[in-house]
Amino acid sequence: MTANLQPDEHALRLHAYYSGKMQTLPKCAIRTLADFSVWYSPGVAAPCRAIARDPDLVYDYTNRGNLVAVVSDGSRILGLGNIGPEAGLPVMEGKAMLFKHLGGVDAVALCLRSRSEDEFIRAVEMLEPSFGAINLEDIAQPGCFRILAALRERMDIPVWHDDQQGSAVVALAGLVNALAVVGKRLDSVRIALLGMGAANSAVCRLLRASGVAPAQIVACDRRGVLHRGRADIARMQDLYPDKWALCAESNPDAITGGPADALRGADVCVAFSAPGPGTIEPAWVRAMARDAIVFACANPVPEIWPQAAHEAGAKVVATGRGDFPNQVNNSLCFPAIFRGVLDVRARTITDSMALAAAHELAAFARDRGISEHDIVPRMDEPGLYPRVAAATAMAAQADGVARLSLSREALLAGATARIAAARGATATLMREGLIAAPPAA
Amino acid sequence: MTANLQPDEHALRLHAYYSGKMQTLPKCAIRTLADFSVWYSPGVAAPCRAIARDPDLVYDYTNRGNLVAVVSDGSRILGLGNIGPEAGLPVMEGKAMLFKHLGGVDAVALCLRSRSEDEFIRAVEMLEPSFGAINLEDIAQPGCFRILAALRERMDIPVWHDDQQGSAVVALAGLVNALAVVGKRLDSVRIALLGMGAANSAVCRLLRASGVAPAQIVACDRRGVLHRGRADIARMQDLYPDKWALCAESNPDAITGGPADALRGADVCVAFSAPGPGTIEPAWVRAMARDAIVFACANPVPEIWPQAAHEAGAKVVATGRGDFPNQVNNSLCFPAIFRGVLDVRARTITDSMALAAAHELAAFARDRGISEHDIVPRMDEPGLYPRVAAATAMAAQADGVARLSLSREALLAGATARIAAARGATATLMREGLIAAPPAA
Repeated sequence: MTANLQPDEHALRLHAYYSGKMQTLPKCAIRTLADFSVWYSPGVAAPCRAIARDPDLVYDYTNRGNLVAVVSDGSRILGLGNIGPEAGLPVMEGKAMLFKHLGGVDAVALCLRSRSEDEFIRAVEMLEPSFGAINLEDIAQPGCFRILAALRERMDIPVWHDDQQGSAVVALAGLVNALAVVGKRLDSVRIALLGMGAANSAVCRLLRASGVAPAQIVACDRRGVLHRGRADIARMQDLYPDKWALCAESNPDAITGGPADALRGADVCVAFSAPGPGTIEPAWVRAMARDAIVFACANPVPEIWPQAAHEAGAKVVATGRGDFPNQVNNSLCFPAIFRGVLDVRARTITDSMALAAAHELAAFARDRGISEHDIVPRMDEPGLYPRVAAATAMAAQADGVARLSLSREALLAGATARIAAARGATATLMREGLIAAPPAA
Repeated sequence: MTANLQPDEHALRLHAYYSGKMQTLPKCAIRTLADFSVWYSPGVAAPCRAIARDPDLVYDYTNRGNLVAVVSDGSRILGLGNIGPEAGLPVMEGKAMLFKHLGGVDAVALCLRSRSEDEFIRAVEMLEPSFGAINLEDIAQPGCFRILAALRERMDIPVWHDDQQGSAVVALAGLVNALAVVGKRLDSVRIALLGMGAANSAVCRLLRASGVAPAQIVACDRRGVLHRGRADIARMQDLYPDKWALCAESNPDAITGGPADALRGADVCVAFSAPGPGTIEPAWVRAMARDAIVFACANPVPEIWPQAAHEAGAKVVATGRGDFPNQVNNSLCFPAIFRGVLDVRARTITDSMALAAAHELAAFARDRGISEHDIVPRMDEPGLYPRVAAATAMAAQADGVARLSLSREALLAGATARIAAARGATATLMREGLIAAPPAA
């Protein structure tokens, strides 16, 4: 960190110093230009003809099987809103970098300038022959729900919206371990969900897939608690079918009102709502059940500061930030999940694969010991990503959506080697001066 | 070359050994995972906000300014026809590799599965925020003409169809030097064009832009010589407007018939037609003017073997192959042209920029001496690519389509450094074992 600069100035300066963050490079040997007679004309005609006869051979003869498109329309970049596709590109490049460094997955940032959801869906669909999987990112709701559903249905490769599914996987992993810490059971706690955007909609879906009954849930959007009488949601049930179903099935006590009412007596609060502090008041946490669990995941500022939540009686507090304990961080899961699905050439990512990833994340932390201040792994814990990748890939095979069949041992070894190779390449280019050292302060 | 294998088996084996040819890697320093607080959350918000205020800053804070999309619909892959987008991917990956190795340009292979030209055009247009330029490749005619024209009109970054424009640039460079060898002038020779597909249509356009009068040209497609009476072309003049114009303006002697008639008395034959040998007969070359020039550019087998053409009286013979003298090879120009346009952030590639590239290619060869067996540079000649890049970039500035203003010296130095860095990175990864050595025979 350049000590004399504010964080923003420092980030701007470094982004400009390197002119961005990702490059492309050959992955095969080039000794002399004569090698292009194999890699290009005339040699390349042989793999082209072979793939024309059997399209699945594209995975053998090209990098498609290790390549992910990180796609956005720029409609909801970070917490900054609809700032457009150009302005979203630094995020997608950063995500591509995380894919390679943490998962050994090659990734390309694609910010599309689309005029409509349908046009965006069709453009992503057309990309299928070139990619092994699609990671959607930073797309505004409700469009993101329909886009994800349509692409999952139409494409024969995995399509993942990390703001929905990735957030949900890590939150569920954290929640499983937080409940273990406080000695409560997932099938009997009362759960309040604050904010019903992309992330908490997916949290709700994964909770249901984990056996949580609708009657255990009280959800709250910006207009208040979800219940059968919410005429505003009824009117838009085509756009928000899951939310409308939740109005009908959750909240058996027919609670009305706002977040204070939702939290009263709850064992768990999972908030992906408006940045705070103040979005969650300490008095509301005091009114929760004994040994309350509070996930305050808004970025960059959590809905309530961890210390305030603890002082109000919360036993376990998690946030989205790395400077507090218990970071609910998508980067813990998406590089591993994609590593796993690519390694078995999965056709999709099922809910049970997402659950397997979440439970492996949680188990990884439990294996080395958890406490109320340490419920989720950290990005730098050795062996994390291969384990989650292998668990995802094994679940894909169990679900019958994998094109390849591999043992857990082979998956672990393969993922470990891929990730080491990616980090080794970056480290080597830095050591040899082909990636410059950052400028001095 | 693995001596025991046929070339096709060797290419298949190596493509499978490496699982394709291109990867993505960080271009900036990652020392610890803490660096992601600059490259991703929360640091990345600063460049996003800056670009939202001024979209041109995307060139400063991302890799967009050095990134090209190599895009195809798979409708005309090599000489193999419409074998589909998956089967085209090895070619596009190979092209991406040439972009990086020869031009220091990052490139991504994108094979799109489109249902129509309009859908393809719209999808490419949507990619604009993520790329500095577009290289179209292996798209069937006549669609390729309309696709290129539409994208050039709609996009504010360079769009190039290498099968048209790249082929024409190198052919023109070779022709200029061939004429110097035989002591004839471009503005007085008679030129026969055989095959009026993507390449020769662009050759014709560049010849016209070089001052060649239509009356100097006789063109011949698969149905015979182009003349005013070609009712078949008249009927399709909407699809082939340039070809119809050529019917009206070229061929003042109203020659009819086939290629034999087109070549009779011609000084120059430029053929991009059906693979031979036998597409051009020796007798037709014998009927050409004294010191005839024959470019037989069909791949993989030229329309006439060079020795046969020489024996029939041709003074200078060029082909598309690297195993004969005078290789008319697109790889001599496209990495340099894109290097040049990216370095000045050009908005388009004008005809005069293409001409500048062609003339610089020709001048490079003349500067080190030409002969009838050595009219064009080879890919391995030091200094070639920076010179052609700088010439292209200077022409962009002269045409008023460059966003940046740079001196020829700065352009030369910048391109030289970029290309050296790209090759250095590959060589380093090979030396350190991060790109494996090819398997032994």
